[in-house]
Amino acid sequence: LPPRRIVTLTTDFGLVDTFVGRMKGVALGICPDVEIVDLTHEVPAHDVEAAGYLLWTAYTAFPPGTIHVAVVDPGVGTERKGLAVRTEHHVFIAPDNGLLTRVLEEEPPGAVHFLEATHYFRGEPSATFHGRDIFAPVAAWIARGTDLAHLGPEATEWVRLPRRPLDLAPGRPSPVRVLHVDRFGNATLDVARNILEPALARSAGRLSVQTLAGPVSELRRTYGDGSGPGPFLLFNSSGHLEVALREGRAADALGLEPGLDVLLILEA
Amino acid sequence: LPPRRIVTLTTDFGLVDTFVGRMKGVALGICPDVEIVDLTHEVPAHDVEAAGYLLWTAYTAFPPGTIHVAVVDPGVGTERKGLAVRTEHHVFIAPDNGLLTRVLEEEPPGAVHFLEATHYFRGEPSATFHGRDIFAPVAAWIARGTDLAHLGPEATEWVRLPRRPLDLAPGRPSPVRVLHVDRFGNATLDVARNILEPALARSAGRLSVQTLAGPVSELRRTYGDGSGPGPFLLFNSSGHLEVALREGRAADALGLEPGLDVLLILEA
Amino acid sequence: LPPRRIVTLTTDFGLVDTFVGRMKGVALGICPDVEIVDLTHEVPAHDVEAAGYLLWTAYTAFPPGTIHVAVVDPGVGTERKGLAVRTEHHVFIAPDNGLLTRVLEEEPPGAVHFLEATHYFRGEPSATFHGRDIFAPVAAWIARGTDLAHLGPEATEWVRLPRRPLDLAPGRPSPVRVLHVDRFGNATLDVARNILEPALARSAGRLSVQTLAGPVSELRRTYGDGSGPGPFLLFNSSGHLEVALREGRAADALGLEPGLDVLLILEA
Repeated sequence: LPPRRIVTLTTDFGLVDTFVGRMKGVALGICPDVEIVDLTHEVPAHDVEAAGYLLWTAYTAFPPGTIHVAVVDPGVGTERKGLAVRTEHHVFIAPDNGLLTRVLEEEPPGAVHFLEATHYFRGEPSATFHGRDIFAPVAAWIARGTDLAHLGPEATEWVRLPRRPLDLAPGRPSPVRVLHVDRFGNATLDVARNILEPALARSAGRLSVQTLAGPVSELRRTYGDGSGPGPFLLFNSSGHLEVALREGRAADALGLEPGLDVLLILEA
Repeated sequence: LPPRRIVTLTTDFGLVDTFVGRMKGVALGICPDVEIVDLTHEVPAHDVEAAGYLLWTAYTAFPPGTIHVAVVDPGVGTERKGLAVRTEHHVFIAPDNGLLTRVLEEEPPGAVHFLEATHYFRGEPSATFHGRDIFAPVAAWIARGTDLAHLGPEATEWVRLPRRPLDLAPGRPSPVRVLHVDRFGNATLDVARNILEPALARSAGRLSVQTLAGPVSELRRTYGDGSGPGPFLLFNSSGHLEVALREGRAADALGLEPGLDVLLILEA
Repeated sequence: LPPRRIVTLTTDFGLVDTFVGRMKGVALGICPDVEIVDLTHEVPAHDVEAAGYLLWTAYTAFPPGTIHVAVVDPGVGTERKGLAVRTEHHVFIAPDNGLLTRVLEEEPPGAVHFLEATHYFRGEPSATFHGRDIFAPVAAWIARGTDLAHLGPEATEWVRLPRRPLDLAPGRPSPVRVLHVDRFGNATLDVARNILEPALARSAGRLSVQTLAGPVSELRRTYGDGSGPGPFLLFNSSGHLEVALREGRAADALGLEPGLDVLLILEA
């Protein structure tokens, strides 16, 4: 492990309030040489699934030993538990509300522990801000070397968000969800390259995404390719299929929003 | 003191321009191992009182020895002075415009100095950006170990913002200001738990907040409690009374904005 | 050079997605003790010239040896090259699309290299995110001590954005572009103090900026000066002429937007 452990933060706290700064203050008080990196604090409020997707896009960019804290927590102060998970390369800390579903499908958990040992918390935790009172201090103690086994009992079950299976068969439309609309208006679809490319190879090879505003079927390699003015498809930097528009906002042009479905069609 | 001193920043500079980055560059040039943490840069433009409130919500999350720089400074370049204040646990640096009023009510000042020793400034300070030219370099010199006494003469008077006293008597409505609306639409009221709870204990124990959109009187423990759809009250993570709405925006639903008054009623 | 090298980031990636966090993760994986500072991630999408202006406002606030990474990159994945430039005090890394034009006019390049040595990249670079795959890792390798000469062949030509010469003669209106509107609504004009002040001294000394909403001709020293309610001019903290309004938004009041022209008139 590197001498300075990295802690990443993913929340829906925004940057207008001081929630994020307070988490950092608590962590630095416990582990002064921790390196804290913001992934995003603009997860839509209370959207646990979006938080899981955004964390998933970013965690593999970090070196082994990184501790990822994600707090989107509509159930704060209720009976929901907290989790610390060690995988082969990373540590993840989050409320047990399904946030880690997508990450743990890709990076199987080694050890999973509930956060119950209150002496790793900040005093008497508030009922409203476990980011400051539980998740940040626990991350800082792990950065200082605390083993996950000290944090609480091993968990054998935890909350998983349901995932709709993707069934790609030529000629039959498959519903696919819009996962995210990025800063440039690109709409990310819940279809990974490593699933879609083999299916494309087995079909006649043409692909179409049907939106309420019409079909999009041209697959390009990058945003600057080609000259046509209309929307097109590409695989983005996380390996997901994306609807884009050259120097424009595809999501606005086509009425795409996170949570909406489009239809994916492999032509027969 | 820890080997790496922490400097926090609270400003109304936003994150679209490079004002904040320039403050950090100047500080790192003077004290390369300083750890800089953003509290918020989204204080409403020129709102000195909001800056003081937001700084107050966050400073106690930081370890002793932290240096807090707050710059909301409509009087930049005029005769207003700059202050450096040492309290028992922290150092605060700000324009002398009342920004520190709330913090210094809670954490009494040990030494207060005006910022006059120009050799701790950045060259010839501009008339428009003392964040970069005075406050950031002074913070970095303090982080390097400069004593406050070297920064300028001791101050015996400084600007304080007026505070309306809260007079809680059962049956008589007390006007209370909306201090802040957070990212989730929760409206924070200028009533602290340690004032209100004793008053509640002395009264019949029921509390009501009267807004233009109607009364709110249910006091819950956390955001996820209960099942009713309407707005409710709770004490937030800073210990202030807050109007909230489960997975909704109470401020929007009730027309609450910072600076507006509501009426607080302890039932007789 | 200081023991911890500083890397600044200027992009149009915003803070809603995880693009910036991923760049930081990659850089910290290569050079764990690098100090990363955000200048801004809110450059208008695809606006290469605005990125160059915003970087220019900030780079001189940083100590010698700082590595500045700027990524506004509508041509990502196409034939456009990447650049690393060493000047007397700084290193700049950006796509070769003219972004560095303004900086390199002020701080002449010593060595300029194209980024071609793929072993300094992150695996096989994607076609859509060279910030993560090329620019961040190259910056981290330079922070670790890699000489620019190892990154690729020396460049003798690179893309420069055209600049309209400013011809100031008394009595003759000169078109001047609005460079930027800052967080406070101040409109920055593409006229530097060191050009304008000598011209003012040679003329009758009165200056006027003609906007579609009328002329602005009062030159003040700072935002808090004077008492008039109307818009006024001042030189901002970067030394550019700016149209401001006391505790108001001059750009909104006068209909000024980046890219629009106003007329600058030195009275005869």
